[in-house]
Amino acid sequence: MPHFLNTQDWSRADLDALLALAAHYKRQPLGDALKGRAIALVFFNPSMRTRTSFEVGAFQLGGHAVVLQPGKDAWPIEFDLGTVMDGEAEEHIAEVARVLARYVDLIGVRAFPKFIDWSQDREDRVLKAFAKYSTVPVINMETITHPCQELAHVLALQEHFGTTDLRGKKFVLTWTYHPKPLNTAVANSALTIATRMGMDVTLLCPTSEYILDERYMGWAAQNVAESGGSLQVSHDIESAYAGADVVYAKSWGALPFFGNWEAEKPLRERFRHFIVDEAKMALTNDGVFSHCLPLRRNVKATDGVMDSPRCIAIAEAENRLHVQKAVMTALIRGL
Amino acid sequence: MPHFLNTQDWSRADLDALLALAAHYKRQPLGDALKGRAIALVFFNPSMRTRTSFEVGAFQLGGHAVVLQPGKDAWPIEFDLGTVMDGEAEEHIAEVARVLARYVDLIGVRAFPKFIDWSQDREDRVLKAFAKYSTVPVINMETITHPCQELAHVLALQEHFGTTDLRGKKFVLTWTYHPKPLNTAVANSALTIATRMGMDVTLLCPTSEYILDERYMGWAAQNVAESGGSLQVSHDIESAYAGADVVYAKSWGALPFFGNWEAEKPLRERFRHFIVDEAKMALTNDGVFSHCLPLRRNVKATDGVMDSPRCIAIAEAENRLHVQKAVMTALIRGL
Amino acid sequence: MPHFLNTQDWSRADLDALLALAAHYKRQPLGDALKGRAIALVFFNPSMRTRTSFEVGAFQLGGHAVVLQPGKDAWPIEFDLGTVMDGEAEEHIAEVARVLARYVDLIGVRAFPKFIDWSQDREDRVLKAFAKYSTVPVINMETITHPCQELAHVLALQEHFGTTDLRGKKFVLTWTYHPKPLNTAVANSALTIATRMGMDVTLLCPTSEYILDERYMGWAAQNVAESGGSLQVSHDIESAYAGADVVYAKSWGALPFFGNWEAEKPLRERFRHFIVDEAKMALTNDGVFSHCLPLRRNVKATDGVMDSPRCIAIAEAENRLHVQKAVMTALIRGL
Repeated sequence: MPHFLNTQDWSRADLDALLALAAHYKRQPLGDALKGRAIALVFFNPSMRTRTSFEVGAFQLGGHAVVLQPGKDAWPIEFDLGTVMDGEAEEHIAEVARVLARYVDLIGVRAFPKFIDWSQDREDRVLKAFAKYSTVPVINMETITHPCQELAHVLALQEHFGTTDLRGKKFVLTWTYHPKPLNTAVANSALTIATRMGMDVTLLCPTSEYILDERYMGWAAQNVAESGGSLQVSHDIESAYAGADVVYAKSWGALPFFGNWEAEKPLRERFRHFIVDEAKMALTNDGVFSHCLPLRRNVKATDGVMDSPRCIAIAEAENRLHVQKAVMTALIRGL
Repeated sequence: MPHFLNTQDWSRADLDALLALAAHYKRQPLGDALKGRAIALVFFNPSMRTRTSFEVGAFQLGGHAVVLQPGKDAWPIEFDLGTVMDGEAEEHIAEVARVLARYVDLIGVRAFPKFIDWSQDREDRVLKAFAKYSTVPVINMETITHPCQELAHVLALQEHFGTTDLRGKKFVLTWTYHPKPLNTAVANSALTIATRMGMDVTLLCPTSEYILDERYMGWAAQNVAESGGSLQVSHDIESAYAGADVVYAKSWGALPFFGNWEAEKPLRERFRHFIVDEAKMALTNDGVFSHCLPLRRNVKATDGVMDSPRCIAIAEAENRLHVQKAVMTALIRGL
Repeated sequence: MPHFLNTQDWSRADLDALLALAAHYKRQPLGDALKGRAIALVFFNPSMRTRTSFEVGAFQLGGHAVVLQPGKDAWPIEFDLGTVMDGEAEEHIAEVARVLARYVDLIGVRAFPKFIDWSQDREDRVLKAFAKYSTVPVINMETITHPCQELAHVLALQEHFGTTDLRGKKFVLTWTYHPKPLNTAVANSALTIATRMGMDVTLLCPTSEYILDERYMGWAAQNVAESGGSLQVSHDIESAYAGADVVYAKSWGALPFFGNWEAEKPLRERFRHFIVDEAKMALTNDGVFSHCLPLRRNVKATDGVMDSPRCIAIAEAENRLHVQKAVMTALIRGL
């Protein structure tokens, strides 16, 4: 059974078909692809955009979304087999997923890292356990990657450039400062999809500590080999921005300090100047700026950048609605 | 673009049209005015009646309500422009409102005062910021006024008196005791709409400290000038109730003590006898009693008053459903 | 007006009709029995299965469920008449229920015991108060009984045995260990419905302290008198399991220790061996196993039992959807 866990699991042809269907839904929002169908949206972490766009999207296609928020922190679910469950966990994922799958036709899962041990968080256990036990398709609503955001971003770029072919565009994924160590999910995803689309990708980050996990660096390398384009890592702001067609900003915590965030803080504080501002954007090839939101203004990007006509972050956010309707449709009735 | 922030922003003809449409929906609950449309209900404070009536109302008209509850306390949103957002706020209202408006056709906002500084709370910043940045109509679901409650109350009075013309009725808005200093929103609203409808309005409160903000006293004075009727402030229970056709009860905190509530407490405690009881109601012109709910029985009003056939509080609460359907319809397709 | 508070209030013919309608909905999920209708689901305690199955069920029949979660703990509602409400309660159940009933066509209520005083909890005050004041039908979504679970279980047994007639089956309701003292609701319900269906019922529990409340023991005795079958209490695992056709497991707190749970703990800890395991199931007549979920694996039942083809817990959970649709339909348009 197909799931939508990562774009990397899907063929390029299928991703292109998803994007085309999303563009169709943007022009023609109502439909009946989910008539009588239900999706459970399981949020282990809070959400506003994801929840609203999935819920409205299901409604516009004749379906219904059930929003389940097991709590801000850990839901006491057991994920291992063979455990004597005499601790906190009241239920095993095997039952949770199998029962939900009897009620609904799709299951979306948001489960952020716990930010204590990356070697554990990188296993993406919650998402994978749902995919293992569910008898209906599972959708990643952001765990350690964020594939829905990827498609929304690509659609926004395709709209901006007036073409579905993004090859040859210079794409800069720039780390920015944020007072807290954030999830790498959107950074992993941006790297993955930008290389998949054959763009010339620069990962701009302050030091080598901010390079992303080898899984995603590996996916990017594989994508470059298959799709053309290029990948480079840079710590130099000026050369990275020079001639860029796309600047995509995100903050994330440095993996070598994962779970040991106090030790990262002095390093992080040195790089507040990675903020996206008008001076940096002036170095680009009249490039567009985007971000997955939420964004702290004048910390990650200046008001001038956010309020510029070259900022496509609102369009990207809107596209979440359209691409998610395409993903739900594809999983229910195929492409 | 039209919003529904305060009845005072709407013409009397449009308010009358809303009330007529609400009366229609009361007779004919189902319709398709919101077919395929979505409304986001953003609750910064909890709700049961407002949430249920909006959600059911949208459903009955073919639409869908997405309920967003950013938390009981403050949602870390920045409202000022130009701020360096390195504190608690993760997102600027400009992005929140603009993105929501891409997903839905209407946005409802409930944002109570913070009860610390009335000079700030009276700016109604959250509601106004949504109205500023949203590209779809915004509805006030209670902030420092409560216009949906106003229309529900007027509809209940029109039903009770068997006429849409309420001129000449004696309307008493009476302060009542409550152990906590409550929002003035419903009091502001009752004063506003009762004068708008041309009634003879008495604001009955224990002392001059309980007079409402000058903005709403000013709206009331303006309404009297334009619609006829009259307005007086009274601290005398007997003369206020004498001959009343309508007694509308509400408790609120005294504005001169705003944020300094311990100092108000001794004053407030002296006025427990403002409770609406059978003896006071006997002074009226066979008047009706109402309240916006929730109501503490035998504190704000006695069981005898609440369970009397002259109590129209349940009918008023039901009318929330009908008037809100009218407001949503008007904002989507005009009157 | 009919409510669905307990199966014991319904005639056997009506229960059979509900089960038949549920079986119909299992084959034919979509319908219009709730077209334009709304149900309020009032959860005083958290839920995943109940909430999802009611919400999806209403949707599949053209209706809409509004989920109200007044909080994990007590919602400050007053239930007595005549009280001066100057404490915590902001609202009286009379207003809550009457207003909700103006907005929706059905009200579901989940209200667990408070686990302090069984003589109070056994009054089922919250559910009964809703039933008293609501002018629309009320459904028990689990309080001190769980009638929806009863019907789901019976439907699963009927499916398993290929007949609607369960007379002559040996039904064992076995207490199991759990680290916490749980609600007796599902145990009360299992005893009630198994005797109602005329089965030969054994209540297996460690000691006489774990015998259920006399109300439910009384219902069971009455059912045996009317429907045939039998009822016995046993503290002997081997003879209880011997020849069983159905093993239904549940943990619950011993009523003599209600509210004094530390004193129960040493007693409870002696009976961890009540776990349902393969050895015990081997004593049965190729019996089926079920449980209402959530279930702690290897505490209440072993992995081997849960993952066996004789476990029908997932089917029972699925049936919640179907029986609840039948209940909602029956309450709206009759059987």
